[in-house]
Amino acid sequence: MSTSRAVPYHHGDLKAALLEAAAALLDEGGVAAVSLREAARRVGVTPAATYRHFADKEALLAALATQGFEAFSKAMQQAARKAPESFAAMGVAYVRFAVRHPGMFRLMFGPAVADRSRSPELQAAIAKSTQVFDQGLKMRGDAAGDAGLAALRAWALMHGLAMLSLDGMLPGYDAETLARALTKMPLPANKKVST
Amino acid sequence: MSTSRAVPYHHGDLKAALLEAAAALLDEGGVAAVSLREAARRVGVTPAATYRHFADKEALLAALATQGFEAFSKAMQQAARKAPESFAAMGVAYVRFAVRHPGMFRLMFGPAVADRSRSPELQAAIAKSTQVFDQGLKMRGDAAGDAGLAALRAWALMHGLAMLSLDGMLPGYDAETLARALTKMPLPANKKVST
Repeated sequence: MSTSRAVPYHHGDLKAALLEAAAALLDEGGVAAVSLREAARRVGVTPAATYRHFADKEALLAALATQGFEAFSKAMQQAARKAPESFAAMGVAYVRFAVRHPGMFRLMFGPAVADRSRSPELQAAIAKSTQVFDQGLKMRGDAAGDAGLAALRAWALMHGLAMLSLDGMLPGYDAETLARALTKMPLPANKKVST
Repeated sequence: MSTSRAVPYHHGDLKAALLEAAAALLDEGGVAAVSLREAARRVGVTPAATYRHFADKEALLAALATQGFEAFSKAMQQAARKAPESFAAMGVAYVRFAVRHPGMFRLMFGPAVADRSRSPELQAAIAKSTQVFDQGLKMRGDAAGDAGLAALRAWALMHGLAMLSLDGMLPGYDAETLARALTKMPLPANKKVST
């Protein structure tokens, strides 16, 4: 999600500097490697200085996950714009994001942020991702019939593929190639597609 | 996967007693709660006594995951046998297993066992699960066309649904109901279905 070296903090936006340092820690060692103390050390401030911006580690993780979902939405949107087959492109973008940013992806969808409802920003970023995904699916015309169920199926499919890849259950396969193949398979004809 | 109280070890099979204690730890607190030392304490032997059976924590986790995949295969097989719609039943069994045994499911598919190839027993148990799943899918007649891809799609779909449920991304929904709905949606007609 970020460069892996933290930039020393000189001036200005301490919150952004802490987030950048935390994103680097996440990239390097996953959720377990993220701490307010270490982020503060890298930025060159005392741990106490961080509490003005983040009440606790979970608040820091929620802010990181928010940035993650924002980047995720952007990646899916750009993919859908470029390709004529927007759902396939978006599916590939979904899996690519997971494979390139495994620490962030696990943070976004995993149990590290125990209570997502504590952060309205995170909630909004998740809702935005869902909206981008649903939009891409609609462009394919598959959302007729039970639109909610069709969207959930597409989401579960890409998410399952991403997780199985990250967790080494598909050794020898390229996750993006699989995503392309799966999204290009015809989805069920949900009776009529009204345009 | 087991009762949540460990039975004190009196006689006989120390390896089985340690596995049972470790399964209880997994149920209670997830992968992080499992340790050879604590399993030994519950069974009433010294930590040193465990090393005859498990070289390290990863060996213990691999043995636990093996038992998990065996139980998982059995659950899917039983589900497929009972119902006429075997794939739907199997999909529900997949998600039900995840929801009822979250610690075990995360261990089986997650990163805790870093190198699955170290355990031939685990490899065999995973292969068996895959085989049961593929078999159930074939009974539906959807595996025509590219059978490997159709099986992967079904797997990714159920796995994604299980993970999204476990990770609280589908609040307010019952995972088994969703699994039933998704597996009953028509899968793509893969051109010809030859019987």
